[in-house]
Amino acid sequence: MKISLVWPGKTRNVNYWTLQRDYLEKIRPWAQVSLIETPEARGLEEKWVDKILEKEARGLEKYAEDGYIICLSDTGKELNSKEFADLIEVKGMNQGCQLVFLVGGFLGLSPRIMEKAHLKLSLSRMTFSHELARTVLLEQIYRALSLIKGYAYPK
Amino acid sequence: MKISLVWPGKTRNVNYWTLQRDYLEKIRPWAQVSLIETPEARGLEEKWVDKILEKEARGLEKYAEDGYIICLSDTGKELNSKEFADLIEVKGMNQGCQLVFLVGGFLGLSPRIMEKAHLKLSLSRMTFSHELARTVLLEQIYRALSLIKGYAYPK
Repeated sequence: MKISLVWPGKTRNVNYWTLQRDYLEKIRPWAQVSLIETPEARGLEEKWVDKILEKEARGLEKYAEDGYIICLSDTGKELNSKEFADLIEVKGMNQGCQLVFLVGGFLGLSPRIMEKAHLKLSLSRMTFSHELARTVLLEQIYRALSLIKGYAYPK
Repeated sequence: MKISLVWPGKTRNVNYWTLQRDYLEKIRPWAQVSLIETPEARGLEEKWVDKILEKEARGLEKYAEDGYIICLSDTGKELNSKEFADLIEVKGMNQGCQLVFLVGGFLGLSPRIMEKAHLKLSLSRMTFSHELARTVLLEQIYRALSLIKGYAYPK
């Protein structure tokens, strides 16, 4: 199974980044997982939100062409962990699609990237910082694969 | 405003723990926040779930007597970040209640602790590990206080 995670820029908080890297290592025995850090928009004030999102969209768009595209979105669909595992099993294993998870930077994803999603996924009704959201997503992918492979999830 | 977080045992993963401690430090200028680590049940196999929860309940129960009690629960009520901030503002600031957040260990909270909750709160439809849940909760308390105090949340 192929899983890609694509997001603009690096995760700067070293604790969040270490957790993300640890989950990637735990996922690796079960899936060909890759993390792609695309260029982030730098040096623009937050009020230029459209410019920032468009600039980052240029780095993200080529990864939103093939595979089953899942964009993280506050207003997306909520799944529980079992439904999320079922999705990964059906799309990633049974149908052999590459699963591509796109996660925005601190202002989210451009609407034109969001349009390419086969699924807009919300991790919670609560708004998470993008560095926390990336960590939660990786924990859920690891949890889903543990479920699919029949392992008890290490608590 | 007084906020207590009460949970059995320490957070063992050093990265989750460092994040939790960092959020506690960020919350401290805005609220009298305290973290209480009650005894955890050790040396019992997971199949003794009732015994484990009962043993941990004995450490937790005295903190579930006073104040506005919020128990984290997978099957609790979901709030968005604005609704969560409103709750903190109304109960913790306007009504002057001490806010007591109870978070379970790796098997959750005993039903008899859960009964004492004024609110059962779910952070997501997804199941999070207890160490992740504690981190998400602290991030949301920090986000809520930033909102209430009128600061832009640092992303």
